[in-house]
Amino acid sequence: MTIRVILLDLEGVLYQQGEPIEGARETVRRLRAMGYPLRFLTNTTTRPRAEIAGRLRAMGFEAPLEDVFSPTFAAALELETGGERRVHLAAEPALAADFGTFELVETAPDAVVMGDLGADFTWERLNGLFRMVSGGARLIALHKNRYWRKEQNLVLDLGPFVAALEYGADIEALVVGKPARAFYQLSLRSLGAALEETLMIGDDIEGDVGGAQNAGLVAVQVRTDKYRDEDEHHPRIRPDYRIDSILELVPLLERIDLQRAAMH
Amino acid sequence: MTIRVILLDLEGVLYQQGEPIEGARETVRRLRAMGYPLRFLTNTTTRPRAEIAGRLRAMGFEAPLEDVFSPTFAAALELETGGERRVHLAAEPALAADFGTFELVETAPDAVVMGDLGADFTWERLNGLFRMVSGGARLIALHKNRYWRKEQNLVLDLGPFVAALEYGADIEALVVGKPARAFYQLSLRSLGAALEETLMIGDDIEGDVGGAQNAGLVAVQVRTDKYRDEDEHHPRIRPDYRIDSILELVPLLERIDLQRAAMH
Repeated sequence: MTIRVILLDLEGVLYQQGEPIEGARETVRRLRAMGYPLRFLTNTTTRPRAEIAGRLRAMGFEAPLEDVFSPTFAAALELETGGERRVHLAAEPALAADFGTFELVETAPDAVVMGDLGADFTWERLNGLFRMVSGGARLIALHKNRYWRKEQNLVLDLGPFVAALEYGADIEALVVGKPARAFYQLSLRSLGAALEETLMIGDDIEGDVGGAQNAGLVAVQVRTDKYRDEDEHHPRIRPDYRIDSILELVPLLERIDLQRAAMH
Repeated sequence: MTIRVILLDLEGVLYQQGEPIEGARETVRRLRAMGYPLRFLTNTTTRPRAEIAGRLRAMGFEAPLEDVFSPTFAAALELETGGERRVHLAAEPALAADFGTFELVETAPDAVVMGDLGADFTWERLNGLFRMVSGGARLIALHKNRYWRKEQNLVLDLGPFVAALEYGADIEALVVGKPARAFYQLSLRSLGAALEETLMIGDDIEGDVGGAQNAGLVAVQVRTDKYRDEDEHHPRIRPDYRIDSILELVPLLERIDLQRAAMH
């Protein structure tokens, strides 16, 4: 096994609560110097890619816009592949920046991209989206999370509204967020890399590690942020490698290379 | 085969556009005189049972309240079987009449009964229902239709909102309307009749005939209202019997009885 491409989860791997994790900036620099193509993978669907890149740079990371891979980017790649030009964006208006090469429309779209509208998922809005998809527009969902916790209360997330349209129009949405396979596959298509030569590093055993392995990638779990002791005995998911933090990633890559050399 | 119980679809079998179908009233009277227990089966979820019975009587049918079997009645039987006392009714307020033996509550219910709220399915309302079911309340849906046509437009029906809650809370609703098996099974439980001794008569090949057969009943299709010539060559569903209208039901029952006698 040779690792040729590296996908990095952001929150919990590179930074935590707005502060870079020790050694993270140096590791990113080092990986670039070693010649690895990198992608910053995030499930953020409330900010455009340029803003995500800007935040990373403000924290001192080398992060050009092109290396930020978010669900909007996956959606845009999908739309290009599908040849869809007229797109209705049912999401944060700021995300329009990530769909600059498309015609953003309010009627008769070729595709609908659904994101986090929250309380703007009114009955009227849902019916408008329903008519678009039942009229033939493809439905792309930036994620399909079930709910989130707002103070004391559970609140419906995007997923239930996607499920409502799917049921109403008897269709299946394409979900492009992590841990959907399409998310990783699209990322790698843009790099021309093979799945088994790609390493994903993350802190979340299910979303990062399980999702990446499910897509055929090599997965490394860091013992920071979302990592829990129980993860070591997870009933289904076993990462290919586990390291204490991203600081150990370069030594790990060197070890993997040594192992490979010994096998030849 | 002996037929002991008869389930009658209403619209399209007994009446059409508010007018009794020829011979329908006489047939109902005759069936009662012959000693058959009858049930009037309807998927109406916008009117309480007493109102449905009143309309039938206004058209000249012998129709006591107890013989009207609608999804609210199925739901109430389910709630009794489940021992649920505190019920939240998310449906037409008039339907409260069909849940008179329960405590109708706005908070902490044992079960939620979902009906046609239409545009009252606001984001706030859906979130309130979501919290009830994710807190453990059982979800019962009066039907799960996908959409309906309002003038020129398709409009989301109850089904998509049920699907949204199901996905959000990762549960499965109990759907009590026709053609759900539970609808027929509950009807017969209240009569103490066996499935194979029960005849269902309807005009809709899928909803009435297919649904009844799927539940193990004997199904008769009438060639009135929703009946279409194509139904004679339906790819999956073949009714046990087909008659031109309800006027032929009594002769059919006599034929079935003769056949049975000849076999003994």
